[in-house]
Amino acid sequence: MNLILLDSSLELIPKEILSHPAVIVNAKKREKDPRYMILDKSLHYSAMAKLKDKEKRGRPDIVHLSLLNFLYLEDEIKGEVFIHTIDGKIISVRNDTRIPKNYERFVSLMEQLLRYGKVPVDSDKPFMEITSESLGSLKKKYKLAVLSENGEKVSLKKICELGENWLIGVGAFPHGDFSEEVKVNADVFYSITDRVLEAHQVICRLSSACLLFLGFLRI
Amino acid sequence: MNLILLDSSLELIPKEILSHPAVIVNAKKREKDPRYMILDKSLHYSAMAKLKDKEKRGRPDIVHLSLLNFLYLEDEIKGEVFIHTIDGKIISVRNDTRIPKNYERFVSLMEQLLRYGKVPVDSDKPFMEITSESLGSLKKKYKLAVLSENGEKVSLKKICELGENWLIGVGAFPHGDFSEEVKVNADVFYSITDRVLEAHQVICRLSSACLLFLGFLRI
Repeated sequence: MNLILLDSSLELIPKEILSHPAVIVNAKKREKDPRYMILDKSLHYSAMAKLKDKEKRGRPDIVHLSLLNFLYLEDEIKGEVFIHTIDGKIISVRNDTRIPKNYERFVSLMEQLLRYGKVPVDSDKPFMEITSESLGSLKKKYKLAVLSENGEKVSLKKICELGENWLIGVGAFPHGDFSEEVKVNADVFYSITDRVLEAHQVICRLSSACLLFLGFLRI
Repeated sequence: MNLILLDSSLELIPKEILSHPAVIVNAKKREKDPRYMILDKSLHYSAMAKLKDKEKRGRPDIVHLSLLNFLYLEDEIKGEVFIHTIDGKIISVRNDTRIPKNYERFVSLMEQLLRYGKVPVDSDKPFMEITSESLGSLKKKYKLAVLSENGEKVSLKKICELGENWLIGVGAFPHGDFSEEVKVNADVFYSITDRVLEAHQVICRLSSACLLFLGFLRI
């Protein structure tokens, strides 16, 4: 199962709000340079008031929780892992990454990644790396099935059996619709339930189902 | 499905390390009183060196991740929710609690809970409350099935069908064995897989299976 988190709410603090008092005070308290801090709604809420698409931004916890629910799965069901960010970056994640369980450590790691392009910064085989790909160029290698409550209703089995030339796309943003970039590049939209689910719930249910079909769970 | 997190790695900083420099520096930075801060291995690692059972302590992120994986499930499968802490407290959690997704906000909430006994502090119907129960006294109302890799191998279906007079117990600590208190009070130990799983993985797999049996998932 190849996973891609789509329109992920993960970015450095954008230039237009770097001088906002809420950003400056918080950066000082953390002894960090605000240019290399991750945008986090719980810290920068007031500064985000005028940001475009603000309801989709500043939620690195969604990416964290999604990765925690996928990267600690059995090796046999983990394929490629990518993060597509809300500003169009494609980050590749080694599927044996022991992602930090502590949120603050995760955020620090993401700050290094977005600042230097990879983590560890000096590694030849980094755990995470910003690639030169775009969602469009990834499509030369993979087809893209996007999970969405508005998609075609299908069984979990169908998604588990798509095979290794498919990417399973899960939105990793809090509110709003997929970007035009995602809509244009999606081959299919599939729905696994009638309810609105959070990204980590989608990953939990889908991976449990796939583990079941592979015989890793006694149902 | 009634859930109880067992031996949960959630406590205020213990008295014997309150004067440790690592604790004092960190409390000052956060502008908090160290007596009312949650013990967190990622912040207090050096101070914890001489603590008894230190390998089981200081991991509130395990409780956070477990609750995130349970409390956002469909209402129909959520029964009672309890947290049994490593020092023997029983916390009751309303199953409609919208637990903070942000880790720092969660920790602040737990600090209030452990300081004042409930959150919100001035509420008649708190979302979380330290009860006067013990694991032993809870046993007057419930039987306890503890999930453990060393337990009897059973199907997920069997656990989903235990019924409402059972508590499903999941260990919410990083390493080591269950406490004597848990061992004495367990009616049965069940194993759902041959692999060692983390608490949130157990909850994810079990809840996915129960959703499947209840017809909430198209498998």
